[in-house]
Amino acid sequence: MLKVYFGPQTIAVATLIALEEAGADYEPVCLDMKNRQQQSEDYLQVNPKGRVPALVTDDGILTETPAVLTYIAQTHPDAGLCPFEDAWAFAQVQSFNAYLASTVHVAHAHNRRGHRWTDNKAAQKAMSAYVPKSMAECFKLIENELFQAPWVMGKIFTICDPYLFAISSWLEGDGVDPARFPLVMEHRSRMHERGSVKRVMALQNG
Amino acid sequence: MLKVYFGPQTIAVATLIALEEAGADYEPVCLDMKNRQQQSEDYLQVNPKGRVPALVTDDGILTETPAVLTYIAQTHPDAGLCPFEDAWAFAQVQSFNAYLASTVHVAHAHNRRGHRWTDNKAAQKAMSAYVPKSMAECFKLIENELFQAPWVMGKIFTICDPYLFAISSWLEGDGVDPARFPLVMEHRSRMHERGSVKRVMALQNG
Repeated sequence: MLKVYFGPQTIAVATLIALEEAGADYEPVCLDMKNRQQQSEDYLQVNPKGRVPALVTDDGILTETPAVLTYIAQTHPDAGLCPFEDAWAFAQVQSFNAYLASTVHVAHAHNRRGHRWTDNKAAQKAMSAYVPKSMAECFKLIENELFQAPWVMGKIFTICDPYLFAISSWLEGDGVDPARFPLVMEHRSRMHERGSVKRVMALQNG
Repeated sequence: MLKVYFGPQTIAVATLIALEEAGADYEPVCLDMKNRQQQSEDYLQVNPKGRVPALVTDDGILTETPAVLTYIAQTHPDAGLCPFEDAWAFAQVQSFNAYLASTVHVAHAHNRRGHRWTDNKAAQKAMSAYVPKSMAECFKLIENELFQAPWVMGKIFTICDPYLFAISSWLEGDGVDPARFPLVMEHRSRMHERGSVKRVMALQNG
């Protein structure tokens, strides 16, 4: 059985939704992020990066959301969460998820995780103040160029959808007016209708 | 035929090496990064993100290094650059490359690309000063936990190797003493012996 370490409202929400969509047999383990349990000695044995998610499998422990999502899709082929057989379609999925991981999530992290890139408090404050602008730029590109509707990749639901949903739920907290991005907001509503998302919302609030 | 837009000493070097390893038929197009050609109107038509690499294929234009590398491997299966059939091995490749993209490359970018996260000049300077520390932390994890030797994934050469090579070549410029990471430095030497790397070095210096 799989085990997944997560924190509420973190990027690990994407992994939880993908596990639900896949119909996976898994045990969720909630970390106390407010007390920085992800940096505790015990958890660093699980994931030396001190982050979530970490997916414990029979083969070993897997980290990094793009890799975790792809692994869930590949090991649960009946759910059809990723078009592996079509190199171009798969590349589009990978490209979208890589953009979320290395640009959008990173822009967001400058709000409250500025200590990753400087110990200067004034600089951290300046970074935080810039987040509404950088996050809005990212979502402008998603809304206008990358998103195909009704799902990220168009007609098929893929591992891009839980990933976008998890990150777009941060917009308000990052000082961005979500009304500027109607396609992304329709996507959020559409996601909330799915059983997988309902179950994960209940899990992280429970 | 494929076409790839690159800049010398950028992360696009990983893509060039992968194309050479794959034996791909491709045309390299060098951008004048010093004069910010990657932000020109013409290039933004190719890649609205204003970054390199961009891989022009018969199906469309692909961006984001992890996706580009996977696509090259998948469309040139004879080169054996990625273990797609083994979900766990593939997940390890994906996880390593995602870490490079979303953590290591991002740490490096705070040296000279701080404007992505703040327009405050003092804050940009503070970010830049912290890069030797954040890059060294990343490479400590790579050296001690992730790297398997002789190649990133152990005995097999994969798309992780050109990616690590491109990023580890930035260590000196980021104020990190590479002698602290002997496995990574042996990897750099081993890469320099490959025909693919020699050809790419000649290309970007030519």
